[in-house]
Amino acid sequence: MPLNDQEPLRCEPHPPPCASSPRLRRLRQVIIDEGIKIVETAGNNPGPVIKQLKAANTTILHKCTTIRHAKSAIKLGVDFLSIDGFECAGHVGEHDITNFILLSRARQDLKVPFIASGGFADGQGLAAALALGAEGINMGTRFMCTLEAPIHHKVKETIVNAQETDTALVLRRWKNTSRLFANKVTQEALKVEKESKTGEFSEIAPFVSGKRGREVFLNGDVDFGVWTAGQVIGLIHDIPTCAQLLTRIEKEALQAMDRTRSLYSDAPQSKL
Amino acid sequence: MPLNDQEPLRCEPHPPPCASSPRLRRLRQVIIDEGIKIVETAGNNPGPVIKQLKAANTTILHKCTTIRHAKSAIKLGVDFLSIDGFECAGHVGEHDITNFILLSRARQDLKVPFIASGGFADGQGLAAALALGAEGINMGTRFMCTLEAPIHHKVKETIVNAQETDTALVLRRWKNTSRLFANKVTQEALKVEKESKTGEFSEIAPFVSGKRGREVFLNGDVDFGVWTAGQVIGLIHDIPTCAQLLTRIEKEALQAMDRTRSLYSDAPQSKL
Repeated sequence: MPLNDQEPLRCEPHPPPCASSPRLRRLRQVIIDEGIKIVETAGNNPGPVIKQLKAANTTILHKCTTIRHAKSAIKLGVDFLSIDGFECAGHVGEHDITNFILLSRARQDLKVPFIASGGFADGQGLAAALALGAEGINMGTRFMCTLEAPIHHKVKETIVNAQETDTALVLRRWKNTSRLFANKVTQEALKVEKESKTGEFSEIAPFVSGKRGREVFLNGDVDFGVWTAGQVIGLIHDIPTCAQLLTRIEKEALQAMDRTRSLYSDAPQSKL
Repeated sequence: MPLNDQEPLRCEPHPPPCASSPRLRRLRQVIIDEGIKIVETAGNNPGPVIKQLKAANTTILHKCTTIRHAKSAIKLGVDFLSIDGFECAGHVGEHDITNFILLSRARQDLKVPFIASGGFADGQGLAAALALGAEGINMGTRFMCTLEAPIHHKVKETIVNAQETDTALVLRRWKNTSRLFANKVTQEALKVEKESKTGEFSEIAPFVSGKRGREVFLNGDVDFGVWTAGQVIGLIHDIPTCAQLLTRIEKEALQAMDRTRSLYSDAPQSKL
């Protein structure tokens, strides 16, 4: 889970999250006291968090949805980056750059290593991310759909039955765009967002409550609140154990690499 | 160029393009008379075109932005598909599924071979598309930025100087969404689209004129009209010859494949 000061879905676009809030200060102290070695940061204004954790010799991975934000994070001293494409779950940013573009831009332009986030569920995706220059992949939605994931089985079944077209972007009007599973509440929130005459955030707030969203994972009523899901839900068709999933991904990645390379072996080599 | 009955940017969302229009009938006849072997179709209602061309033994490649459309095209008898992700130039469709998702869905679900369109400019992208299951890539924006491309040099220079964030989606309100270079006219069109009280297409039509867009390529005034560009403009940094570009892509793809495979060679193999 990214280290920021927010509910699973941030419901208050203004003011921005405050790095000096009591909850975040406590979280940082626990991380330092427990000697956590690697922390992922995300969101705006990570400077103070990064500074404090770096002073405690923590390795920092920062997640970002644009190259501009990645470069700012590098200046702040992060050790590596998580490049998060438009296909991802949750906060997609406001520029909608897909991972095919974003990972290549990262390879071309950034001087630190990066992993790929958003859109990954299998070994073919891993092989593709590596080809684009990433050092690995980051999976959220896919791990929600494993036997071990501490969420209600009905949520996992819902992911298995979903299509890649079953997500929606909400809160763009408030520059806080989030990709959510397109359930009833999400559709209602979108209607309010589109039709509100005032543009007051308070009109949509009840529909995007993070508290109700968390309840979904406990009670299994997938329409009880909003919950995040990436477009990758269209690629997920079963609920394996984490071990089964990782073994399968490793095998698929190797097969994809070997297939890809073999497509070329038959071609004439002389031109190179 | 896709075989349909439209200007480079389709300016009339209603009625849909008519497969029996005189211009399209003439185009089809020329294709048949000249013995063209492979044709790319795109857009709605390709059935009649596909039927006539298949009867003339033409191989049909159909471009689509959703798996649902791909399946319809397969039923109509197309030979292979071009899977076109949200990052592409021009008509992106209305579902905004990125190529990382769409290509994997195609691999999982379609029984015909496919190539990848939208987001490709280099060999790393080619290697990634192959890993996801594609048989090759389709490049539009990248070829615009070659020495041989018959468009004004200033357009090519504009692409070289552009960022991946310099495109915009226009005409979503009319379910005819197009990704355009975010120049002055595109921004004006977006303003009209957002603010129009009537929602009449005639209000935006002058801003998205395909005729003025074509003029851009002749006169080099990149703000004279709207013109399509993919997010891939952020990955394009030079104006090579086509031969130089293809040789480079081949080399980059092989290097990417070899790097990717070598990342794995050091890991223990026994688990597989």
